Amino acid sequence: MLVPLLSRIDHIGIACRDLETAIERYATFGLQVVSLEVNEEQGVREAMLQVGGTGPGTGSRPGYVQLLEPLGPDTPVGRFLARRGEGLHHVGYGVDDIVAALATLGVRGVRLLDERPRHGSMGASIAFLHPADLGGVLTELVQLAGPA
Amino acid sequence: MLVPLLSRIDHIGIACRDLETAIERYATFGLQVVSLEVNEEQGVREAMLQVGGTGPGTGSRPGYVQLLEPLGPDTPVGRFLARRGEGLHHVGYGVDDIVAALATLGVRGVRLLDERPRHGSMGASIAFLHPADLGGVLTELVQLAGPA
Repeated sequence: MLVPLLSRIDHIGIACRDLETAIERYATFGLQVVSLEVNEEQGVREAMLQVGGTGPGTGSRPGYVQLLEPLGPDTPVGRFLARRGEGLHHVGYGVDDIVAALATLGVRGVRLLDERPRHGSMGASIAFLHPADLGGVLTELVQLAGPA
Repeated sequence: MLVPLLSRIDHIGIACRDLETAIERYATFGLQVVSLEVNEEQGVREAMLQVGGTGPGTGSRPGYVQLLEPLGPDTPVGRFLARRGEGLHHVGYGVDDIVAALATLGVRGVRLLDERPRHGSMGASIAFLHPADLGGVLTELVQLAGPA
C-alpha cells in the first residue's frame, strides 16, 4: 500500500463566463466569497467561496468552490469554455509538502503540467497534473500558505 | 445573508469506462477503496475512495473520490461518456437535513432533479439539482446515513 499523498479535497474549480453571475448563483446556497483575486499567470479572475469548515487559524481548513472567469478567450479557461461550456473545470487536493508530492508522483509515472509549484489562490503553492493520467480529470495539488 | 446549507464537499463524482482501471489510477495517490457497490437505480457500478479525514465514528467525515462506471450505454453516466468522455461528472455537498435543504432550495428557485431523497452511496440519502441553475455543474446533496 502506498502512503496517502492527499490530505483533503481542497476545492472544486468551476469555469464560468461571468464571475458576478456565478457568485450570485452560489449565494443561493448561502456560500460567501472569502477571496477575490486576479491571477494573470493563469489568465483568470477568480472567487473562492467557503464550504463548511471552521475558518482559518483553527487547524482545520474548509473546502472551497473556486469560480473562474477567463481574462480573455486565449487563456486555458477561455479555451475550456469555448470547447465545453460552463461547468466543472478541475479538482484541487490538499498536500502537506507539494515539492515532495510532485517528486513522488513523477517517480510513479504521473505526468506533471508543472514541474515546480507556482502561485495559487490565497497565497497557496499549487501545481497541475496531466488529466490523461487521471481519467480525464485536470487535477491540482495545493499546499496552503503559512509555516510548514 | 442566507444561512449556509452546505456543510462540506462530500465527494467528486468521476465518470470512467472501466472501474478497475480507474481505481488503479487513483492508487497512484495512495487512495484506497472503502466502498464498492452497484446502484441499479442510477445505472452505475461505483467505488468510493477516501481522501483524508479520520474515518467513521470520529465526528468528522473525510471527502471521497467517487468513481462511476455505467451499467450500460443507455444510462445517465453511459450517455455522459458518449457525449463528453471520461472526467468530472458531478460534485456532492454534505447537508445536515436533506428534506429541509430541498424545500429551501426549491423556494429559492433552484430546479430539483429529485423532489425527494433517494438511495446513494454507503447508505446516504441523496438528491440531484439541475445543472442549468448551477453554471453547468450537476450538483448532488448528501445526508449521511445514521442517526440525525
